[in-house]
Amino acid sequence: MSQFMNKKEDIVTEAVDGVVAASGGRLARLDGYPHIRVVVRNDWDKSKVALVSGGGSGHEPAHAGFVGAGMLTAAVCGDVFASPSVDAVLAGILAVTGSAGCLLIVKNYTGDRLNFGLAAERAKAFGLNVEMVIVDDDIALPDLPQARGVAGTLFVHKIAGALAERGGDLETVAQAARKVIAGTKSIGMSLDTCTVPGSPKEARIPDGMAELGLGIHGEAGVEQVAFDGAKEAVAAVANKLSAAIDDRPHVALVNNLGGASVLEMSVLAHELGQSPIADRITHMIGPAAMMTSLDMRGFSVSLYPADDSEIELLSAATPLAAWPGLSEIGPVGLVAVPDGLTPVAPLPSDHAETRTFLTDCCEVLIAAEDDLNALDAKSGDGDTGSTLAGAARALIAAMDRLPLADHTQLLRAIGLELSQTMGGSSGVLLAIFFAASGDGASSGLPMREALKAGLARMQEIGGAQLGDRTMVDALAPALDALQSSVREAADAARSGADHTATILQAKAGRAAYINAKQLEGHADPGAEAVARLFEHLAA
Amino acid sequence: MSQFMNKKEDIVTEAVDGVVAASGGRLARLDGYPHIRVVVRNDWDKSKVALVSGGGSGHEPAHAGFVGAGMLTAAVCGDVFASPSVDAVLAGILAVTGSAGCLLIVKNYTGDRLNFGLAAERAKAFGLNVEMVIVDDDIALPDLPQARGVAGTLFVHKIAGALAERGGDLETVAQAARKVIAGTKSIGMSLDTCTVPGSPKEARIPDGMAELGLGIHGEAGVEQVAFDGAKEAVAAVANKLSAAIDDRPHVALVNNLGGASVLEMSVLAHELGQSPIADRITHMIGPAAMMTSLDMRGFSVSLYPADDSEIELLSAATPLAAWPGLSEIGPVGLVAVPDGLTPVAPLPSDHAETRTFLTDCCEVLIAAEDDLNALDAKSGDGDTGSTLAGAARALIAAMDRLPLADHTQLLRAIGLELSQTMGGSSGVLLAIFFAASGDGASSGLPMREALKAGLARMQEIGGAQLGDRTMVDALAPALDALQSSVREAADAARSGADHTATILQAKAGRAAYINAKQLEGHADPGAEAVARLFEHLAA
Repeated sequence: MSQFMNKKEDIVTEAVDGVVAASGGRLARLDGYPHIRVVVRNDWDKSKVALVSGGGSGHEPAHAGFVGAGMLTAAVCGDVFASPSVDAVLAGILAVTGSAGCLLIVKNYTGDRLNFGLAAERAKAFGLNVEMVIVDDDIALPDLPQARGVAGTLFVHKIAGALAERGGDLETVAQAARKVIAGTKSIGMSLDTCTVPGSPKEARIPDGMAELGLGIHGEAGVEQVAFDGAKEAVAAVANKLSAAIDDRPHVALVNNLGGASVLEMSVLAHELGQSPIADRITHMIGPAAMMTSLDMRGFSVSLYPADDSEIELLSAATPLAAWPGLSEIGPVGLVAVPDGLTPVAPLPSDHAETRTFLTDCCEVLIAAEDDLNALDAKSGDGDTGSTLAGAARALIAAMDRLPLADHTQLLRAIGLELSQTMGGSSGVLLAIFFAASGDGASSGLPMREALKAGLARMQEIGGAQLGDRTMVDALAPALDALQSSVREAADAARSGADHTATILQAKAGRAAYINAKQLEGHADPGAEAVARLFEHLAA
Repeated sequence: MSQFMNKKEDIVTEAVDGVVAASGGRLARLDGYPHIRVVVRNDWDKSKVALVSGGGSGHEPAHAGFVGAGMLTAAVCGDVFASPSVDAVLAGILAVTGSAGCLLIVKNYTGDRLNFGLAAERAKAFGLNVEMVIVDDDIALPDLPQARGVAGTLFVHKIAGALAERGGDLETVAQAARKVIAGTKSIGMSLDTCTVPGSPKEARIPDGMAELGLGIHGEAGVEQVAFDGAKEAVAAVANKLSAAIDDRPHVALVNNLGGASVLEMSVLAHELGQSPIADRITHMIGPAAMMTSLDMRGFSVSLYPADDSEIELLSAATPLAAWPGLSEIGPVGLVAVPDGLTPVAPLPSDHAETRTFLTDCCEVLIAAEDDLNALDAKSGDGDTGSTLAGAARALIAAMDRLPLADHTQLLRAIGLELSQTMGGSSGVLLAIFFAASGDGASSGLPMREALKAGLARMQEIGGAQLGDRTMVDALAPALDALQSSVREAADAARSGADHTATILQAKAGRAAYINAKQLEGHADPGAEAVARLFEHLAA
């Protein structure tokens, strides 16, 4: 699959320029392209302890996105998933370090350790006061002597960054960082591999499986586990973390590894609150993409048992859009649904013939579900069949509370049921149709005229005219022909529905947004539903 | 592909609960699950104009993520890509509307227009003061009477929200919203379709193509265009926008449709600054995921010619993590690279035999590039071959400035070149190896002993022991055997490299993080490189 990039070798420099250009002047970069890609605070006077981090690119917003007041002073950006060179790190250190000194925050990967380590030695040779901390928060491989550094690094950036911003000296800041590192535990899970720029995507994780205990460089996870849904996924992660943490209150950092949707991340955050470790989590950072692995559809959870002063540092304001802030976790606050939603319900009554007729109609729609979905997929979002079948099922379920013996009230009651159970435009349009038909019937119109009045009202609010490729194209001719016979109405509905397959410029409904070529030969699903209904009645 | 969800029908309620739980008590929801999914501000006293928005889910963080001081008062969440019901919208309106009234901000989709419209009518019947605005910012189909509402909606949320927060009355707020809507133009582009929960993913966009002019519900774009890279993609979007806007300063809202990586979004932001409309863009919001289409790998650009007072409203502080803030766009600030990076270069000298020898060695590594990458893909990130070949090419290019006639200086000079041109751990490790070998040679050691001193120093800093599945496993026995002959050294290197394919628990390097089964039968790429080098020398 393509990616939004130009030449692979330019992706990091172009991205860095994008970050700096969009920073509103808060950031600058060192003038050392292409080898030296260092983002620095533009308002930095070297009067406080400098925080320098970085590593391979591909983890955005880390690290350039966290350069700013209260977090990093400089970020050194390597190629995608490759450590920056010693010279690049050294340039970053020299650019921002004053007499207060500099803390290097390094994730525990050999390359980063070596390059940052050598750069630190070289910087010390300049007489600079440089300390280095190595983050090793990953718990995927508990028996590994050298644990990886992953998203827990953000705890270090924020706590050390807030301390430095307040004027803490290097020893204080480094000590705080080491304490955070000692207490931070992280683990990640993914449903798919990431797409490394310029490389084909590896198909490593079979459908229905997930990788647990993965790093942030596309390498395989420690184990592949069956994926049974968000709840089980979070439970698996929580169980690993549970074994690694004490029985104390923790802050959870919920990180999107890049490719999970925001919707999914909220589901995961919800599940974390239901998980085996929920009672040990008092605060949350995220969910948000903080330390990504390019576009990996995965997440990680990092836990740190912050004390009160650290909670305060994590909460401290920062102008960085990439930092999602810290929130206390509480129960989901509930507000009562306001009164006045439900109009007075009609008195239920039974009527065998009507019950059978209505149930029959509903079953036609239920049987047509797949066909109508397939038609809708050509012009919309493929849910017309499900929407109508869902409404039909709801109507069958509601049969006992409908005024089946009073046809005027019944039309209104059906409109009410539909407005309460159906989403989407078809729900409201049908509700309007039945409600207005009921109004017509109660004002004395014969049923056919009442239905035509309902249709007129539906067209008025929905805006659809004959020929606009909607259900109107079947319903209008059917109601006109109903005066003669149900058979003629069915024929008219079928002919109207078939005609919609030749209308290539829809003017209403979602099909209006579609390229004409894609509509050709496919009937409008609403019109098709109407035709099937009348054909069933005529059969 | 799987998604992080449980049952499809629970995804929205669970996500809403996740958002509310992680809000730190800022948010609550109406107690009307499953049909009524409304997120409300928890600190709302109805004293100001309420802003209610929403629509289908799948656009997160819109809309629940924008509920809070200075933006929305309530968000009504439908099923994925389906409008919420009239009752749900009405419940939202009734829950937050006081005597100051309520503004409904609705995107122009039939379902939303109908449901919000009917709910507004019902709310008015309660005596509430309700206004509704319809956002139609999409310019994909210029001749469409009903343009869609897409990410430009965020301009309305923020400007109207800031005005309402300051106590503006309903007429003022609604008028400001209508002005923003009239001036906002948006268009989107995507490289792939989105994954609708519970549905198979549609393979609609061929490799190498992009869809231009798409909505936010997975529907096909207006046209498929060849995708030639980020620059051309942004230019295509910019050209469409250029035709739709005046020659005035604009704010650009750069929106991630969900699945583009943060790295890609920064490249796109950079390209927007180089695009045909760059001179008409003075401010930027994002890049960030604001109005997504689930996990679609795409982006949209929305433009609005904000005046000074509107710039001020867009800049107004809000506690919402999902709102990325407004930044002025400026040139990329450059800071000079600090002095002191480059150690004094040695005096170049020529030596035909050494030149040939060194070039030969480099060419062995260049020829092995693909093989070594393939080996590395089994245990790391697949770049060892490219890294070594890149270094070899750089060394060949640097040949004329090397002190070829002075072997002591040459070792150090090679180390220096490698430290300046290679990223990754291998670069530094080799730099250390050559630098320390040069130190050894300059202190009078014979070449074999000097190289062994280099190896010892490399192991000390890198931490790799014999048997750890690294290049050491080939290099150490080779240097030991070198005392006898180059042939024996080559045999020892080959035997050492082959042995690494049987070491299933790596202890250093990135392979240490990999499941043992995946390593079996694949030699360490660094050791393989060493073996090939010695084999070439012995041939």
